[in-house]
Amino acid sequence: MNPDCGALLTDLYQLTMLQGYWQHGMHETAVFEFFVRKLPPHRNFLIAAGLEQAIVYLEDLAFSSAELEWLRQTQRFQPEFLCWLEKMRFTGDVNAMPEGTVFFADEPILQVIAPLPEAQFVETRLINLLNFQTTIASKAARSVLVARNKLLVDFGLRRAQGADAGLMAARATYIAGFSGTSTVLAGQRFKVPIYGTMAHSFVQAHADEMTAFARFADANPGNVVLLIDTYNTEAAAEKVVRLAPQLKQRGIVIRAVRIDSGDLGSHARKVRQILDSGGLGDVHIFASGNLDEYKLRDLIEVGAPIDGFGVGTRLDTSSDAPYLDCAYKLQEYGGRPCGKRSEGKTTWPGRKQVYRTLDGAGCMTGDVLALHDEREEGEPLVHPVLCGGKRLHASIPLSASCDRAARQLEQLPERLRKLDQAAQPFKVKISPGLQSLALAVDEQSRWSG
Amino acid sequence: MNPDCGALLTDLYQLTMLQGYWQHGMHETAVFEFFVRKLPPHRNFLIAAGLEQAIVYLEDLAFSSAELEWLRQTQRFQPEFLCWLEKMRFTGDVNAMPEGTVFFADEPILQVIAPLPEAQFVETRLINLLNFQTTIASKAARSVLVARNKLLVDFGLRRAQGADAGLMAARATYIAGFSGTSTVLAGQRFKVPIYGTMAHSFVQAHADEMTAFARFADANPGNVVLLIDTYNTEAAAEKVVRLAPQLKQRGIVIRAVRIDSGDLGSHARKVRQILDSGGLGDVHIFASGNLDEYKLRDLIEVGAPIDGFGVGTRLDTSSDAPYLDCAYKLQEYGGRPCGKRSEGKTTWPGRKQVYRTLDGAGCMTGDVLALHDEREEGEPLVHPVLCGGKRLHASIPLSASCDRAARQLEQLPERLRKLDQAAQPFKVKISPGLQSLALAVDEQSRWSG
Repeated sequence: MNPDCGALLTDLYQLTMLQGYWQHGMHETAVFEFFVRKLPPHRNFLIAAGLEQAIVYLEDLAFSSAELEWLRQTQRFQPEFLCWLEKMRFTGDVNAMPEGTVFFADEPILQVIAPLPEAQFVETRLINLLNFQTTIASKAARSVLVARNKLLVDFGLRRAQGADAGLMAARATYIAGFSGTSTVLAGQRFKVPIYGTMAHSFVQAHADEMTAFARFADANPGNVVLLIDTYNTEAAAEKVVRLAPQLKQRGIVIRAVRIDSGDLGSHARKVRQILDSGGLGDVHIFASGNLDEYKLRDLIEVGAPIDGFGVGTRLDTSSDAPYLDCAYKLQEYGGRPCGKRSEGKTTWPGRKQVYRTLDGAGCMTGDVLALHDEREEGEPLVHPVLCGGKRLHASIPLSASCDRAARQLEQLPERLRKLDQAAQPFKVKISPGLQSLALAVDEQSRWSG
Repeated sequence: MNPDCGALLTDLYQLTMLQGYWQHGMHETAVFEFFVRKLPPHRNFLIAAGLEQAIVYLEDLAFSSAELEWLRQTQRFQPEFLCWLEKMRFTGDVNAMPEGTVFFADEPILQVIAPLPEAQFVETRLINLLNFQTTIASKAARSVLVARNKLLVDFGLRRAQGADAGLMAARATYIAGFSGTSTVLAGQRFKVPIYGTMAHSFVQAHADEMTAFARFADANPGNVVLLIDTYNTEAAAEKVVRLAPQLKQRGIVIRAVRIDSGDLGSHARKVRQILDSGGLGDVHIFASGNLDEYKLRDLIEVGAPIDGFGVGTRLDTSSDAPYLDCAYKLQEYGGRPCGKRSEGKTTWPGRKQVYRTLDGAGCMTGDVLALHDEREEGEPLVHPVLCGGKRLHASIPLSASCDRAARQLEQLPERLRKLDQAAQPFKVKISPGLQSLALAVDEQSRWSG
């Protein structure tokens, strides 16, 4: 998906601005930071994701001759500018929070330090990459927190917002702690474990349900999960009980049944009883159908005997908060700190670092947003990832990001682990140095304005 | 974006089901239909979009040897099944509503008639393609209806849910009546007109705003749109007035100013007055920043002197309704009509057509959902697009879809053109034949269950 988007997957204004920078020789070093201005409602924290794709984008950035030819015929650009653009590569440094890091409003999760045109140009696609996976990992973490010890599988591809969204949602939900996905391509590309059974159409294509179950089991003997809600859920569970001994004779074990409609908790209880009475205590119950973290919480709170959940559309679109109020902002140019003072959009200027402290029990106590050359107490969260346009480390295995997310979710204060908005949000302090700089930049921008 | 997703961008269960169909020789003709069960809240109609990408997907469907090798090593599939999969192509027929068609709940916008395994396999990606572009075109049409005669530009790429979403949102919003997009790739791929100016960072990278404006104008003399809200919007408008005569001497005309923050209506009024007093009555005012159709309506209702709008994040994510309650359902197999009777998800069985009637003034009066071989009054909306896996017509120019959408929006009853939910929804009648079939299928499924 990513490699073929090419350099034209950007906003036109990046190119018109670059023509301005180029014409006036503005190639000094710029520092841009990506951060979230404000957490969405019902989010007490976010989880950084998408960095790997951002790194690949930066390393591979180059205009093809077909792209340059297309730009030429728009007649918007000077030929010498396009010659310069042909040679442009990303040669800068990047610091970032590793994927799976829990973070909060105003904290930079990515910092680009590069000649102004390069740092500017990559804005659109970097936001596009980081916004989406971070949105989805943050949404998925909520299901993970409420459904610990349950199997959680991403089922969202079909109603994800496009191909890329479906694929990357599988990756982001896995980072956040999902067990896997139904998206086959995510298995191939990212080694995310894949899960899948049957649709209602499989049952309907057969003259009767029993035949459909038997045929599915014969064709997929290692993965027998039967969908039991096409006609009557409990009647189908009885059929599963009758089918099990026949399959056993052929050496086939039924692993689970899936319920995809109706009152999932009520059906699960009845089905559990039918299965148990029929000697199928080992057959798991898997539920799906319009699920999200709230429904998971409700089902778990009432003790529904469900062993795993397929979570789809609302997860992959993060339907209650489908985007982040995020920005990629110029913080410094040619050594001069910058601050944007537009109404309602004020941000902290300068090049920054984030320090995090834990208490004795390993629970997060607070972050400090500081200038990059201040030293505050705690662990710095922003680390070098690219130097001179090249990766500092080999591509990090996804499992490391999963482990980091799991560890950091453990470190979250209890009040932030709830689905509802915490009355007392996580404390992010502003360092003395950053406070002074903000005042100075305010003063300066009064004169620029 | 699309061509390279390959055949693995699907749910695993498509492959496990296909192994079942293959093993038991279930290759008879199946009919599947894609439709929306229920319109989202605040939608009185939808606009079909994404068909062109669906056709390309079906025409190109084939497993590569790398994909087959990857499937082999998962050890989930029989070698003979994978040999069969290697030869599988889409050989069926497809009927559909052309892109830009207004449609309603329960109406099929795509109908696939093909051997069961082929018709089944394409489910996930077809939903993925049609759901997203239809969601976005339907959202965009609302802005078009409230902001007639204004320039509307899609600005959403950066916070769209991935690369594909950003690109396809540009296409879908254009179909619905937007003037263009900031997404350069949509210009190259789909000939959507592209728009773009400067970001706040361009202004901030300069020591002062006046220099930034002058340099941008010099570098982009044919497209001078100046962003005036980095520091103080009205002060910047005064600078524009002072700069204009200097630029004029160099033969450069300022086309517009852009305001991206604060109270857009209030700023626009003050800026309009400053520009008019300064002899710049021809300079347009363009507004952007957290806009959607509701904010557009508010600004237009108070008569804000804004000539065009950049609409971004909320449009490209359709943030108030980020997905459709849509399905791709088996309606017939081997000549036998199917109906899915799961709780809360009952649908109309059989292979269908939709007929639409207009009154004397060309206003839509009602649709009839009928069986495909019934003849009802009105114009049939579902037309053949693929036959035997091949396109019946050359790729339709996007402008034809734009024209269709514009025409159909004109035909919408007044009550459906409002942003609020119409008290009286559009009338979709069920034909006598379809009603009888539904009863018969209900009866039959009671026995299958």
